[in-house]
Amino acid sequence: MDCPLCAAAQETVLWRDGSCRVILIDEPDYPGFCRVVWNGHVAEMTDLTASEQRHLLNVVLATEAALRQVMRPDKINLASLGNVVPHLHWHVIPRFTDDRHFPQPVWGSSQREGASRTVPPIEQLTHAIVATLTEQTAG
Amino acid sequence: MDCPLCAAAQETVLWRDGSCRVILIDEPDYPGFCRVVWNGHVAEMTDLTASEQRHLLNVVLATEAALRQVMRPDKINLASLGNVVPHLHWHVIPRFTDDRHFPQPVWGSSQREGASRTVPPIEQLTHAIVATLTEQTAG
Repeated sequence: MDCPLCAAAQETVLWRDGSCRVILIDEPDYPGFCRVVWNGHVAEMTDLTASEQRHLLNVVLATEAALRQVMRPDKINLASLGNVVPHLHWHVIPRFTDDRHFPQPVWGSSQREGASRTVPPIEQLTHAIVATLTEQTAG
Repeated sequence: MDCPLCAAAQETVLWRDGSCRVILIDEPDYPGFCRVVWNGHVAEMTDLTASEQRHLLNVVLATEAALRQVMRPDKINLASLGNVVPHLHWHVIPRFTDDRHFPQPVWGSSQREGASRTVPPIEQLTHAIVATLTEQTAG
């Protein structure tokens, strides 16, 4: 088996626990583009148990909350596709009306040369993810 | 306000409750393409309370389970985008290796004339969604 998400290396990990990790993607058009990757090699959300689903989705939504807080995007895009790499992972993408593809999905046709933006500080994103996960647990 | 998901009409509703609905989309290339639409006009998952998030995601995953059971797709694609219509809704899309865009997202570039497939019977999909939601509640 030759799965790039099983054999991951050189990732920028913002947060991780025993079952999944949040990584920051190096994508010049999309600063702040994160992926939440389930550690086990399964393809679909409904391959997980109910408590695993809940945990993964809590991490996805904590990542959404962190990106909204740190970057104030115009929209968040969430997607679990996995057609090319059928290893469960979520895209969490901060979108801006002046980015390269808006209002198309980032997989659609390019609309313009996207406005330039800086990648937020890693520590700030990690801190915001941890803060939201802590709130979830407290709630 | 002129939101097409608030002013919905002519939808094929597979299932609904007081907070959301599952609709079957008329998309010839993608039989079984469903959308799960939150009734309230909010833009993001993190605009919902924790229990609302959990409920909506349970319905999304029940739709995924029903589509897998009835259609046996090669992959499921899940996405919450809302760049054009910022009213919270999820795409739940059964994908086949011989469909029009595989392995691209359905928003990507066309790869071929997609194989023809029939839309599954509505009653069968509804029954499968209800069965999964009932299991979730029992679990």
